Amino acid sequence: MIERNDSGGAVSEPGVGGSTIGVLGGTGPQGRGLALRWAAAGMRVVIGSRDAGRAKVAAGELAEQAGIDAGSDLITGADNSGCAVSADLILVAVPWDGHDTLLTSLRAELAGKIVIDCVNPLGFDKQGRFPLRVEEGSAAEQAAALLPDSRASAAFHHVSAVTLADLTVTEVHLDVLVLGDDREATDQVRALADTIPGVRGIFGGRLRNAGQVEALTANLIAINRRYKTHAGIRITDLP
Amino acid sequence: MIERNDSGGAVSEPGVGGSTIGVLGGTGPQGRGLALRWAAAGMRVVIGSRDAGRAKVAAGELAEQAGIDAGSDLITGADNSGCAVSADLILVAVPWDGHDTLLTSLRAELAGKIVIDCVNPLGFDKQGRFPLRVEEGSAAEQAAALLPDSRASAAFHHVSAVTLADLTVTEVHLDVLVLGDDREATDQVRALADTIPGVRGIFGGRLRNAGQVEALTANLIAINRRYKTHAGIRITDLP
Repeated sequence: MIERNDSGGAVSEPGVGGSTIGVLGGTGPQGRGLALRWAAAGMRVVIGSRDAGRAKVAAGELAEQAGIDAGSDLITGADNSGCAVSADLILVAVPWDGHDTLLTSLRAELAGKIVIDCVNPLGFDKQGRFPLRVEEGSAAEQAAALLPDSRASAAFHHVSAVTLADLTVTEVHLDVLVLGDDREATDQVRALADTIPGVRGIFGGRLRNAGQVEALTANLIAINRRYKTHAGIRITDLP
Repeated sequence: MIERNDSGGAVSEPGVGGSTIGVLGGTGPQGRGLALRWAAAGMRVVIGSRDAGRAKVAAGELAEQAGIDAGSDLITGADNSGCAVSADLILVAVPWDGHDTLLTSLRAELAGKIVIDCVNPLGFDKQGRFPLRVEEGSAAEQAAALLPDSRASAAFHHVSAVTLADLTVTEVHLDVLVLGDDREATDQVRALADTIPGVRGIFGGRLRNAGQVEALTANLIAINRRYKTHAGIRITDLP
Protein backbone atom coordinates (compact mmCIF):
# COMPACT_ATOMS: atom_id res chain seq x y z
CA MET A 1 0.00 0.00 0.00
CA ILE A 2 0.90 3.66 -0.30
CA GLU A 3 2.98 5.03 2.53
CA ARG A 4 1.02 7.18 4.91
CA ASN A 5 1.70 9.99 7.29
CA ASP A 6 1.48 8.45 10.72
CA SER A 7 2.18 11.57 12.72
CA GLY A 8 -1.11 12.14 14.52
CA GLY A 9 -4.57 10.83 13.82
CA ALA A 10 -5.89 7.32 13.58
CA VAL A 11 -4.57 5.03 10.88
CA SER A 12 -7.91 5.22 9.08
CA GLU A 13 -7.74 9.03 8.78
CA PRO A 14 -4.07 9.88 8.98
CA GLY A 15 -3.44 13.56 9.54
CA VAL A 16 -6.78 15.08 8.62
CA GLY A 17 -9.20 13.46 11.06
CA GLY A 18 -10.18 16.61 12.93
CA SER A 19 -9.56 19.11 10.17
CA THR A 20 -12.02 21.44 8.48
CA ILE A 21 -11.81 21.58 4.69
CA GLY A 22 -12.64 24.82 2.91
CA VAL A 23 -13.58 24.76 -0.77
CA LEU A 24 -13.11 28.09 -2.54
CA GLY A 25 -15.30 27.96 -5.62
CA GLY A 26 -17.34 25.30 -3.89
CA THR A 27 -20.44 26.02 -5.95
CA GLY A 28 -18.73 24.88 -9.18
CA PRO A 29 -18.91 21.24 -10.29
CA GLN A 30 -15.36 20.22 -9.23
CA GLY A 31 -15.63 21.89 -5.82
CA ARG A 32 -19.13 20.54 -5.21
CA GLY A 33 -18.10 17.02 -6.12
CA LEU A 34 -15.12 16.96 -3.78
CA ALA A 35 -17.06 18.67 -0.98
CA LEU A 36 -19.77 16.04 -1.31
CA ARG A 37 -17.29 13.19 -1.04
CA TRP A 38 -15.49 14.71 1.94
CA ALA A 39 -18.74 15.39 3.76
CA ALA A 40 -19.89 11.85 2.99
CA ALA A 41 -16.61 10.62 4.51
CA GLY A 42 -17.38 12.53 7.71
CA MET A 43 -15.06 15.52 7.19
CA ARG A 44 -16.22 18.99 8.19
CA VAL A 45 -16.56 21.08 5.01
CA VAL A 46 -17.13 24.79 4.39
CA ILE A 47 -18.31 25.78 0.91
CA GLY A 48 -16.93 29.14 -0.17
CA SER A 49 -18.35 31.43 -2.84
CA ARG A 50 -18.30 35.12 -3.67
CA ASP A 51 -21.93 35.11 -2.58
CA ALA A 52 -22.44 33.63 0.90
CA GLY A 53 -26.10 32.99 0.09
CA ARG A 54 -25.24 30.81 -2.89
CA ALA A 55 -22.67 28.95 -0.78
CA LYS A 56 -25.28 28.22 1.90
CA VAL A 57 -27.74 26.95 -0.71
CA ALA A 58 -25.06 24.65 -2.18
CA ALA A 59 -24.12 23.43 1.31
CA GLY A 60 -27.74 22.57 2.02
CA GLU A 61 -28.08 20.67 -1.26
CA LEU A 62 -24.87 18.73 -0.67
CA ALA A 63 -25.87 17.90 2.92
CA GLU A 64 -29.13 16.52 1.66
CA GLN A 65 -27.40 14.50 -1.07
CA ALA A 66 -24.91 13.11 1.43
CA GLY A 67 -27.72 12.22 3.84
CA ILE A 68 -26.48 14.63 6.51
CA ASP A 69 -28.93 16.04 9.07
CA ALA A 70 -29.86 19.61 8.07
CA GLY A 71 -29.21 20.78 11.66
CA SER A 72 -25.63 19.47 11.55
CA ASP A 73 -22.73 21.82 10.97
CA LEU A 74 -20.79 19.19 9.02
CA ILE A 75 -21.23 21.10 5.77
CA THR A 76 -21.84 24.84 5.77
CA GLY A 77 -21.54 27.79 3.40
CA ALA A 78 -19.78 31.15 3.68
CA ASP A 79 -18.26 33.84 1.52
CA ASN A 80 -14.75 33.03 0.32
CA SER A 81 -13.13 35.03 3.11
CA GLY A 82 -15.19 33.31 5.80
CA CYS A 83 -14.45 29.95 4.21
CA ALA A 84 -10.70 30.59 4.27
CA VAL A 85 -10.75 31.77 7.88
CA SER A 86 -12.69 28.81 9.23
CA ALA A 87 -10.82 25.98 7.47
CA ASP A 88 -7.47 24.24 8.07
CA LEU A 89 -6.97 22.95 4.52
CA ILE A 90 -8.36 25.03 1.68
CA LEU A 91 -9.04 23.71 -1.81
CA VAL A 92 -8.85 26.33 -4.56
CA ALA A 93 -11.42 25.23 -7.14
CA VAL A 94 -12.15 28.51 -8.87
CA PRO A 95 -11.96 29.22 -12.61
CA TRP A 96 -8.46 30.07 -13.88
CA ASP A 97 -9.78 33.43 -14.96
CA GLY A 98 -9.80 35.28 -11.64
CA HIS A 99 -7.52 32.82 -9.80
CA ASP A 100 -4.84 35.45 -9.20
CA THR A 101 -7.27 38.15 -8.06
CA LEU A 102 -9.06 35.91 -5.58
CA LEU A 103 -5.88 34.53 -4.03
CA THR A 104 -4.35 37.99 -3.71
CA SER A 105 -7.47 39.16 -1.89
CA LEU A 106 -7.28 36.24 0.60
CA ARG A 107 -3.57 36.42 1.43
CA ALA A 108 -4.17 37.24 5.09
CA GLU A 109 -6.96 34.69 5.61
CA LEU A 110 -4.88 31.90 4.02
CA ALA A 111 -1.67 32.64 5.95
CA GLY A 112 -0.28 29.57 7.71
CA LYS A 113 -2.79 27.24 6.08
CA ILE A 114 -2.44 24.39 3.62
CA VAL A 115 -3.70 25.62 0.26
CA ILE A 116 -4.50 22.93 -2.32
CA ASP A 117 -4.73 24.19 -5.87
CA CYS A 118 -6.67 22.00 -8.32
CA VAL A 119 -7.04 24.59 -11.07
CA ASN A 120 -6.25 23.57 -14.66
CA PRO A 121 -5.36 26.56 -16.86
CA LEU A 122 -6.75 25.37 -20.19
CA GLY A 123 -7.83 27.08 -23.36
CA PHE A 124 -10.46 25.83 -25.77
CA ASP A 125 -10.94 26.07 -29.50
CA LYS A 126 -12.49 23.98 -32.25
CA GLN A 127 -9.70 21.41 -31.84
CA GLY A 128 -10.52 20.96 -28.17
CA ARG A 129 -8.59 21.80 -25.02
CA PHE A 130 -4.99 22.89 -24.76
CA PRO A 131 -2.80 24.17 -21.91
CA LEU A 132 -2.38 27.89 -21.46
CA ARG A 133 1.07 29.31 -20.84
CA VAL A 134 1.28 30.44 -17.22
CA GLU A 135 3.94 32.98 -16.35
CA GLU A 136 4.71 31.34 -12.99
CA GLY A 137 4.78 27.86 -14.63
CA SER A 138 1.48 26.59 -13.27
CA ALA A 139 -1.61 27.64 -11.34
CA ALA A 140 -0.08 26.05 -8.24
CA GLU A 141 3.14 28.03 -8.58
CA GLN A 142 1.09 31.17 -9.07
CA ALA A 143 -0.71 30.36 -5.81
CA ALA A 144 2.64 29.85 -4.08
CA ALA A 145 3.92 33.16 -5.40
CA LEU A 146 0.79 35.07 -4.37
CA LEU A 147 0.52 33.38 -0.96
CA PRO A 148 4.05 33.45 0.47
CA ASP A 149 2.77 32.78 4.01
CA SER A 150 0.68 29.74 3.05
CA ARG A 151 1.71 26.11 2.52
CA ALA A 152 1.02 25.67 -1.20
CA SER A 153 0.28 22.28 -2.72
CA ALA A 154 -1.51 20.99 -5.81
CA ALA A 155 -3.84 18.01 -6.14
CA PHE A 156 -7.23 16.78 -7.37
CA HIS A 157 -6.69 17.94 -10.96
CA HIS A 158 -8.04 14.84 -12.67
CA VAL A 159 -11.09 13.90 -10.65
CA SER A 160 -14.28 13.75 -12.68
CA ALA A 161 -16.98 16.03 -11.31
CA VAL A 162 -19.58 13.74 -12.87
CA THR A 163 -18.24 10.68 -11.08
CA LEU A 164 -17.84 12.48 -7.77
CA ALA A 165 -21.42 13.76 -7.90
CA ASP A 166 -22.78 10.25 -8.37
CA LEU A 167 -22.79 8.61 -4.94
CA THR A 168 -23.90 5.34 -6.52
CA VAL A 169 -20.23 5.16 -7.58
CA THR A 170 -19.11 3.93 -4.17
CA GLU A 171 -15.43 3.57 -5.12
CA VAL A 172 -13.74 6.25 -7.21
CA HIS A 173 -10.95 4.33 -8.90
CA LEU A 174 -8.22 6.84 -9.52
CA ASP A 175 -5.02 8.23 -8.09
CA VAL A 176 -4.65 11.82 -6.99
CA LEU A 177 -1.17 13.20 -7.60
CA VAL A 178 -0.20 15.52 -4.75
CA LEU A 179 2.56 18.03 -5.45
CA GLY A 180 4.41 20.35 -3.15
CA ASP A 181 7.67 21.21 -1.45
CA ASP A 182 6.38 20.85 2.14
CA ARG A 183 6.43 17.19 3.08
CA GLU A 184 4.12 17.45 6.05
CA ALA A 185 1.59 19.41 3.95
CA THR A 186 1.63 16.95 1.05
CA ASP A 187 1.22 14.10 3.54
CA GLN A 188 -1.93 15.76 4.88
CA VAL A 189 -3.28 16.34 1.37
CA ARG A 190 -2.59 12.71 0.49
CA ALA A 191 -4.51 11.69 3.60
CA LEU A 192 -7.35 13.97 2.51
CA ALA A 193 -7.44 12.22 -0.87
CA ASP A 194 -7.44 8.84 0.87
CA THR A 195 -10.70 9.71 2.67
CA ILE A 196 -12.57 9.22 -0.63
CA PRO A 197 -13.20 5.49 -1.07
CA GLY A 198 -11.15 4.08 -3.95
CA VAL A 199 -8.88 7.12 -4.27
CA ARG A 200 -5.18 6.95 -3.47
CA GLY A 201 -3.26 10.13 -2.69
CA ILE A 202 0.21 9.76 -4.18
CA PHE A 203 3.13 12.14 -3.88
CA GLY A 204 3.71 13.38 -7.42
CA GLY A 205 6.72 15.67 -7.15
CA ARG A 206 7.70 19.21 -6.27
CA LEU A 207 5.54 22.22 -7.05
CA ARG A 208 7.69 23.08 -10.08
CA ASN A 209 6.38 19.86 -11.65
CA ALA A 210 2.71 20.83 -11.22
CA GLY A 211 2.29 22.44 -14.65
CA GLN A 212 2.23 19.18 -16.59
CA VAL A 213 -0.17 17.58 -14.11
CA GLU A 214 -2.56 20.50 -14.61
CA ALA A 215 -2.11 20.39 -18.39
CA LEU A 216 -2.64 16.62 -18.54
CA THR A 217 -6.31 17.37 -17.93
CA ALA A 218 -6.46 18.40 -21.62
CA ASN A 219 -5.33 14.89 -22.56
CA LEU A 220 -7.88 13.27 -20.28
CA ILE A 221 -10.59 15.39 -21.91
CA ALA A 222 -9.35 14.21 -25.34
CA ILE A 223 -9.51 10.62 -24.08
CA ASN A 224 -13.03 11.22 -22.76
CA ARG A 225 -14.11 12.45 -26.19
CA ARG A 226 -12.54 9.54 -28.06
CA TYR A 227 -13.57 6.76 -25.72
CA LYS A 228 -16.81 8.25 -24.33
CA THR A 229 -15.73 7.91 -20.72
CA HIS A 230 -14.64 9.87 -17.63
CA ALA A 231 -10.97 8.97 -17.61
CA GLY A 232 -8.60 9.32 -14.70
CA ILE A 233 -5.16 7.93 -14.06
CA ARG A 234 -3.66 5.23 -11.90
CA ILE A 235 0.04 4.96 -11.15
CA THR A 236 1.29 1.44 -11.83
CA ASP A 237 3.74 -0.68 -9.90
CA LEU A 238 3.36 1.04 -6.55
CA PRO A 239 4.38 -1.14 -3.62
CA MET B 1 -11.36 -3.20 -24.66
CA ILE B 2 -9.65 -0.32 -26.40
CA GLU B 3 -10.90 0.40 -29.88
CA ARG B 4 -8.54 -0.83 -32.54
CA ASN B 5 -7.71 0.03 -36.10
CA ASP B 6 -9.21 -2.78 -38.12
CA SER B 7 -8.12 -1.58 -41.54
CA GLY B 8 -5.72 -4.28 -42.64
CA GLY B 9 -3.88 -6.92 -40.69
CA ALA B 10 -5.12 -9.62 -38.39
CA VAL B 11 -7.00 -8.65 -35.25
CA SER B 12 -4.03 -9.72 -33.17
CA GLU B 13 -1.67 -7.31 -34.92
CA PRO B 14 -3.89 -4.56 -36.28
CA GLY B 15 -2.14 -2.32 -38.74
CA VAL B 16 1.52 -3.09 -38.04
CA GLY B 17 1.78 -6.82 -38.78
CA GLY B 18 4.13 -6.57 -41.75
CA SER B 19 5.87 -3.34 -40.81
CA THR B 20 9.53 -2.75 -40.02
CA ILE B 21 10.23 -0.63 -36.95
CA GLY B 22 13.30 1.60 -36.90
CA VAL B 23 14.70 2.79 -33.59
CA LEU B 24 16.88 5.91 -33.84
CA GLY B 25 19.02 5.94 -30.74
CA GLY B 26 18.45 2.22 -30.46
CA THR B 27 21.60 1.67 -28.42
CA GLY B 28 20.26 3.74 -25.49
CA PRO B 29 18.25 2.08 -22.71
CA GLN B 30 14.78 3.25 -23.82
CA GLY B 31 15.38 2.35 -27.46
CA ARG B 32 16.94 -1.01 -26.59
CA GLY B 33 14.10 -1.93 -24.27
CA LEU B 34 11.40 -1.21 -26.83
CA ALA B 35 13.36 -2.88 -29.65
CA LEU B 36 13.72 -5.98 -27.49
CA ARG B 37 10.00 -6.16 -26.81
CA TRP B 38 9.05 -5.60 -30.45
CA ALA B 39 11.51 -8.22 -31.65
CA ALA B 40 10.23 -10.62 -28.99
CA ALA B 41 6.71 -9.98 -30.34
CA GLY B 42 7.88 -10.95 -33.83
CA MET B 43 8.20 -7.50 -35.34
CA ARG B 44 11.08 -6.73 -37.69
CA VAL B 45 13.34 -4.16 -35.99
CA VAL B 46 16.27 -2.06 -37.21
CA ILE B 47 18.48 -0.53 -34.52
CA GLY B 48 19.87 2.86 -35.57
CA SER B 49 22.92 4.60 -34.19
CA ARG B 50 25.44 7.20 -35.33
CA ASP B 51 27.88 4.29 -35.50
CA ALA B 52 26.59 1.36 -37.58
CA GLY B 53 29.05 -0.96 -35.81
CA ARG B 54 27.61 -0.17 -32.40
CA ALA B 55 24.10 -0.65 -33.78
CA LYS B 56 25.00 -4.10 -35.14
CA VAL B 57 26.50 -5.12 -31.79
CA ALA B 58 23.34 -3.97 -29.96
CA ALA B 59 21.16 -5.81 -32.49
CA GLY B 60 23.13 -9.01 -31.90
CA GLU B 61 22.81 -8.69 -28.13
CA LEU B 62 19.08 -8.03 -28.33
CA ALA B 63 18.54 -10.93 -30.73
CA GLU B 64 20.31 -13.23 -28.29
CA GLN B 65 18.29 -11.91 -25.36
CA ALA B 66 15.04 -12.35 -27.28
CA GLY B 67 16.06 -15.89 -28.29
CA ILE B 68 16.14 -15.03 -32.00
CA ASP B 69 18.34 -17.07 -34.34
CA ALA B 70 21.56 -15.11 -35.10
CA GLY B 71 21.08 -15.80 -38.82
CA SER B 72 17.64 -14.20 -38.82
CA ASP B 73 17.14 -10.66 -40.10
CA LEU B 74 14.41 -9.98 -37.54
CA ILE B 75 16.63 -7.54 -35.69
CA THR B 76 19.49 -5.76 -37.42
CA GLY B 77 21.67 -2.69 -36.97
CA ALA B 78 22.48 0.27 -39.24
CA ASP B 79 23.53 3.87 -39.06
CA ASN B 80 20.67 6.29 -38.38
CA SER B 81 20.21 7.07 -42.07
CA GLY B 82 20.07 3.41 -43.03
CA CYS B 83 17.68 2.74 -40.18
CA ALA B 84 15.32 5.50 -41.33
CA VAL B 85 15.38 4.34 -44.95
CA SER B 86 14.61 0.70 -44.20
CA ALA B 87 11.78 1.15 -41.68
CA ASP B 88 8.08 2.01 -42.00
CA LEU B 89 7.59 3.36 -38.49
CA ILE B 90 10.53 5.09 -36.85
CA LEU B 91 10.89 5.64 -33.11
CA VAL B 92 12.99 8.66 -32.15
CA ALA B 93 14.70 7.64 -28.90
CA VAL B 94 17.72 9.93 -28.92
CA PRO B 95 18.79 12.35 -26.17
CA TRP B 96 17.03 15.72 -26.25
CA ASP B 97 20.39 17.36 -26.74
CA GLY B 98 20.93 16.76 -30.46
CA HIS B 99 17.30 15.88 -31.24
CA ASP B 100 16.89 18.83 -33.62
CA THR B 101 20.19 18.24 -35.43
CA LEU B 102 19.55 14.55 -36.01
CA LEU B 103 16.01 15.03 -37.29
CA THR B 104 17.04 17.86 -39.60
CA SER B 105 19.72 15.60 -41.08
CA LEU B 106 17.19 12.81 -41.74
CA ARG B 107 14.41 14.90 -43.31
CA ALA B 108 14.63 13.14 -46.68
CA GLU B 109 14.92 9.63 -45.26
CA LEU B 110 11.92 10.14 -42.96
CA ALA B 111 9.65 11.67 -45.60
CA GLY B 112 6.30 9.91 -45.85
CA LYS B 113 6.96 7.77 -42.80
CA ILE B 114 5.37 7.57 -39.38
CA VAL B 115 7.76 9.15 -36.90
CA ILE B 116 7.15 8.38 -33.22
CA ASP B 117 8.86 10.73 -30.82
CA CYS B 118 9.37 9.43 -27.26
CA VAL B 119 11.88 12.05 -26.17
CA ASN B 120 11.36 13.79 -22.80
CA PRO B 121 13.09 17.18 -22.64
CA LEU B 122 14.02 17.26 -18.94
CA GLY B 123 16.59 19.12 -16.92
CA PHE B 124 18.20 17.92 -13.72
CA ASP B 125 19.48 19.63 -10.61
CA LYS B 126 19.82 18.77 -6.94
CA GLN B 127 16.03 18.88 -6.56
CA GLY B 128 15.57 16.27 -9.26
CA ARG B 129 14.07 16.42 -12.72
CA PHE B 130 12.06 19.25 -14.22
CA PRO B 131 10.68 19.96 -17.71
CA LEU B 132 12.70 22.17 -20.03
CA ARG B 133 10.95 24.91 -21.96
CA VAL B 134 10.79 23.87 -25.62
CA GLU B 135 10.28 26.62 -28.16
CA GLU B 136 7.98 24.49 -30.32
CA GLY B 137 5.99 23.36 -27.25
CA SER B 138 7.34 19.81 -27.06
CA ALA B 139 9.90 17.47 -28.58
CA ALA B 140 7.13 15.99 -30.72
CA GLU B 141 6.09 19.37 -32.08
CA GLN B 142 9.73 20.12 -32.80
CA ALA B 143 9.87 16.86 -34.78
CA ALA B 144 6.72 17.84 -36.66
CA ALA B 145 8.19 21.26 -37.47
CA LEU B 146 11.51 19.82 -38.66
CA LEU B 147 9.92 16.96 -40.62
CA PRO B 148 7.07 18.56 -42.58
CA ASP B 149 6.87 15.59 -44.95
CA SER B 150 6.64 12.95 -42.20
CA ARG B 151 3.65 11.80 -40.16
CA ALA B 152 4.62 12.95 -36.67
CA SER B 153 3.30 11.28 -33.55
CA ALA B 154 4.40 10.92 -29.94
CA ALA B 155 4.26 7.87 -27.69
CA PHE B 156 6.22 5.57 -25.34
CA HIS B 157 7.30 8.39 -23.00
CA HIS B 158 6.64 6.58 -19.73
CA VAL B 159 7.86 3.06 -20.35
CA SER B 160 10.51 1.93 -17.90
CA ALA B 161 13.70 0.81 -19.65
CA VAL B 162 14.45 -1.41 -16.65
CA THR B 163 11.12 -3.19 -16.90
CA LEU B 164 11.32 -3.56 -20.68
CA ALA B 165 14.80 -5.09 -20.47
CA ASP B 166 13.62 -7.74 -18.04
CA LEU B 167 11.86 -10.40 -20.10
CA THR B 168 10.88 -12.24 -16.92
CA VAL B 169 8.29 -9.43 -16.69
CA THR B 170 5.98 -11.13 -19.18
CA GLU B 171 3.24 -8.49 -18.96
CA VAL B 172 4.15 -4.80 -18.87
CA HIS B 173 1.20 -3.26 -17.07
CA LEU B 174 0.96 0.27 -18.37
CA ASP B 175 -0.78 2.43 -20.91
CA VAL B 176 1.04 4.18 -23.72
CA LEU B 177 -0.51 7.53 -24.60
CA VAL B 178 -0.31 8.08 -28.36
CA LEU B 179 -0.56 11.67 -29.59
CA GLY B 180 -0.89 13.05 -33.07
CA ASP B 181 -3.10 14.80 -35.58
CA ASP B 182 -3.12 11.97 -38.18
CA ARG B 183 -5.71 9.42 -37.15
CA GLU B 184 -4.43 6.58 -39.31
CA ALA B 185 -0.89 7.13 -38.00
CA THR B 186 -1.92 7.20 -34.34
CA ASP B 187 -3.96 4.04 -34.93
CA GLN B 188 -0.83 2.30 -36.23
CA VAL B 189 1.24 3.51 -33.29
CA ARG B 190 -1.44 2.29 -30.88
CA ALA B 191 -1.31 -1.07 -32.60
CA LEU B 192 2.47 -1.06 -32.24
CA ALA B 193 2.09 -0.44 -28.49
CA ASP B 194 -0.44 -3.26 -28.28
CA THR B 195 2.14 -5.77 -29.57
CA ILE B 196 3.88 -5.61 -26.15
CA PRO B 197 2.02 -7.94 -23.79
CA GLY B 198 0.19 -6.00 -21.07
CA VAL B 199 0.56 -2.63 -22.80
CA ARG B 200 -2.44 -0.72 -24.13
CA GLY B 201 -1.95 1.96 -26.77
CA ILE B 202 -4.45 4.73 -26.05
CA PHE B 203 -5.12 7.85 -28.08
CA GLY B 204 -4.02 10.72 -25.84
CA GLY B 205 -4.78 13.84 -27.84
CA ARG B 206 -3.42 16.08 -30.55
CA LEU B 207 0.27 16.82 -30.93
CA ARG B 208 -0.14 20.21 -29.26
CA ASN B 209 -0.94 18.29 -26.07
CA ALA B 210 2.31 16.26 -26.16
CA GLY B 211 4.35 18.64 -24.00
CA GLN B 212 2.70 17.70 -20.71
CA VAL B 213 2.93 13.98 -21.50
CA GLU B 214 6.66 14.35 -22.07
CA ALA B 215 7.04 16.48 -18.93
CA LEU B 216 5.03 14.04 -16.81
CA THR B 217 8.08 11.79 -16.94
CA ALA B 218 9.61 14.13 -14.33
CA ASN B 219 6.72 13.31 -12.01
CA LEU B 220 7.08 9.58 -12.59
CA ILE B 221 10.77 9.87 -11.71
CA ALA B 222 9.80 11.71 -8.50
CA ILE B 223 7.34 8.91 -7.74
CA ASN B 224 10.05 6.33 -8.41
CA ARG B 225 12.33 8.05 -5.91
CA ARG B 226 9.67 8.34 -3.22
CA TYR B 227 8.17 4.87 -3.60
CA LYS B 228 11.23 2.94 -4.83
CA THR B 229 9.47 1.65 -7.94
CA HIS B 230 9.30 1.92 -11.74
CA ALA B 231 6.02 3.78 -12.06
CA GLY B 232 3.92 4.05 -15.18
CA ILE B 233 0.34 5.15 -15.73
CA ARG B 234 -2.95 3.48 -16.49
CA ILE B 235 -5.99 5.33 -17.75
CA THR B 236 -9.05 4.45 -15.66
CA ASP B 237 -12.62 3.83 -16.74
CA LEU B 238 -11.93 2.92 -20.34
CA PRO B 239 -14.68 0.87 -21.92
